[in-house]
Amino acid sequence: MAQDPFSAGVDIGGTKISAVIVNGAGEIVGRAKKKTKAALGFAEVMNRTAECLAQAAEEAGTAVAALNVVGVGAPGPLLPDGTVVNAPNMGWSRVPLSKSLQTLFHCPVYSENDCNAGTFGEYKLGAGIGAKMLVGLFMGTGLGGGIIIDGKIITGVNYMGAELGHITVQRGGRVCGCGKRGCLEAYASKTGMGFRFRHAILAEKRPSILHELSGKNLDNVSSSVLKQAWLAHDPVTVETLTEAAEYLGEGIANFITLLAPDVVVVGGGVFQELGRQLMPIVKRAAKEACFPAASFRHTKILPAKLGDDAVALGALAYARERQAAEV
Amino acid sequence: MAQDPFSAGVDIGGTKISAVIVNGAGEIVGRAKKKTKAALGFAEVMNRTAECLAQAAEEAGTAVAALNVVGVGAPGPLLPDGTVVNAPNMGWSRVPLSKSLQTLFHCPVYSENDCNAGTFGEYKLGAGIGAKMLVGLFMGTGLGGGIIIDGKIITGVNYMGAELGHITVQRGGRVCGCGKRGCLEAYASKTGMGFRFRHAILAEKRPSILHELSGKNLDNVSSSVLKQAWLAHDPVTVETLTEAAEYLGEGIANFITLLAPDVVVVGGGVFQELGRQLMPIVKRAAKEACFPAASFRHTKILPAKLGDDAVALGALAYARERQAAEV
Repeated sequence: MAQDPFSAGVDIGGTKISAVIVNGAGEIVGRAKKKTKAALGFAEVMNRTAECLAQAAEEAGTAVAALNVVGVGAPGPLLPDGTVVNAPNMGWSRVPLSKSLQTLFHCPVYSENDCNAGTFGEYKLGAGIGAKMLVGLFMGTGLGGGIIIDGKIITGVNYMGAELGHITVQRGGRVCGCGKRGCLEAYASKTGMGFRFRHAILAEKRPSILHELSGKNLDNVSSSVLKQAWLAHDPVTVETLTEAAEYLGEGIANFITLLAPDVVVVGGGVFQELGRQLMPIVKRAAKEACFPAASFRHTKILPAKLGDDAVALGALAYARERQAAEV
Repeated sequence: MAQDPFSAGVDIGGTKISAVIVNGAGEIVGRAKKKTKAALGFAEVMNRTAECLAQAAEEAGTAVAALNVVGVGAPGPLLPDGTVVNAPNMGWSRVPLSKSLQTLFHCPVYSENDCNAGTFGEYKLGAGIGAKMLVGLFMGTGLGGGIIIDGKIITGVNYMGAELGHITVQRGGRVCGCGKRGCLEAYASKTGMGFRFRHAILAEKRPSILHELSGKNLDNVSSSVLKQAWLAHDPVTVETLTEAAEYLGEGIANFITLLAPDVVVVGGGVFQELGRQLMPIVKRAAKEACFPAASFRHTKILPAKLGDDAVALGALAYARERQAAEV
């Protein structure tokens, strides 16, 4: 039935690029993945993104230039014209993302910050459908998030807002990857957890199966390894993940205290693997820390639904709205 | 020239009620104040509010029943129909504020939370004019605040949001008046500061002129006494106020990191007295804790302009908008 042109969503992450092709009925009809290789520089990442999208389009039986619109999610604050202001983990500063991809794709491109896009995806197609105010949180290597109010992504002045992982919840506390102390991300992310379990295993010499499961590479422990260790009741892992979930709950309480959203969606790699185990801890901690206490029961805390596709599908939904607004 | 009817704003606080009458040109043409005496109960506070407003109206040469509209700011979350959900310091739970006052005043009444009203006042008439997004903070006995986005007061689901003083900035830290630990208000308010200087003076037996200046009543130190002690370089006072200002800066950094407002307005009793002294400390702490660091310079941190009138004038501005929307 659907004779609408195909469109696409692309998620450019620090490790991998992924692309999905969506038909007029909203079904995913093509997919591809490719390593990002950010170290090769911006132009090469653009080429690799084009190759990835071409491969997904081929699977869907179409061509990139025939796509109606492409939405792109990428790290860092983005200006409305698709310029990435800066993305330290990519080595990008003031790069013209949308413009570069538009030249390569020969079709319209709109870009948004990846966590904003992921939150918008959950709002449009996932766990946050119908929310008047939605807070999205994604716990993986870092802790990213987004805020949607009345259907609009809150980016703030100069598009730098919604850095939910970098609010201070422990003034003077653990050093965060960003250089500050006591950020939520310094506890509630794989990077933050790494500080704790490496200290326990390497400095305090506590026994832990994490050491073995990670191939003795404690700098890069995957969410699935964390799950294995949790299910084996490894004390260091259980303590670390419990602390991370409690901090996440404390952070969610702050967002409820401040904004009282109707829905908070929690996703990201750690929660895809361990959501069922961690969610009760998160909710208990959030309940204890909300003010007024009564506001807790008005906010639903829900697991994300779109999994790995949240950013790509959210970027596409965002691109469609931008395109429609311009017509 | 202005033949418009008079209108009024009322600020019902824990200690005092104040009312202003405003003419069609926006000038304050009548004022009155009265002790709240909350212990006498809700009905008596309503009577006292009516007496206070009548006195202000008399000064303006008008009568309460002739007022075009009255805006009321009061503690606690308020529903749009003017019911106060709860206000522990007043002993109120589900009281029909607007309805009760409308019966006494014989003119239209709209009510809003006092801190939301104060922020709205600064947005409409004070330091936040023209802001796309404004965060207001008022440091007095407690630390209250409000958030305005695109001209709308953010109250969240069930009107309980914008409790800016009760975000956690020090998980497991100092006990707050609300019962939680580590709230911003537990450090950045007169109540929070009281914990620290009482401990220094009473438990650690440190000398401080606060003891004498407050008439040995350290439970109720006024902002003007704090200013006297600061100007006399009293070490306990300087340490305590510096800590409070640093925490406030950390809190402001959280609001910038999350929302990236174009303006943050800081007011309240402590800042009316000591704003010039404390503002540089607040700004330095906020600058250190913002993420991304660049976002700090896009947000203006400004002293409030309306002083003691912010709540009453803001409530009136809010009431005018509500009334206009209903016509």
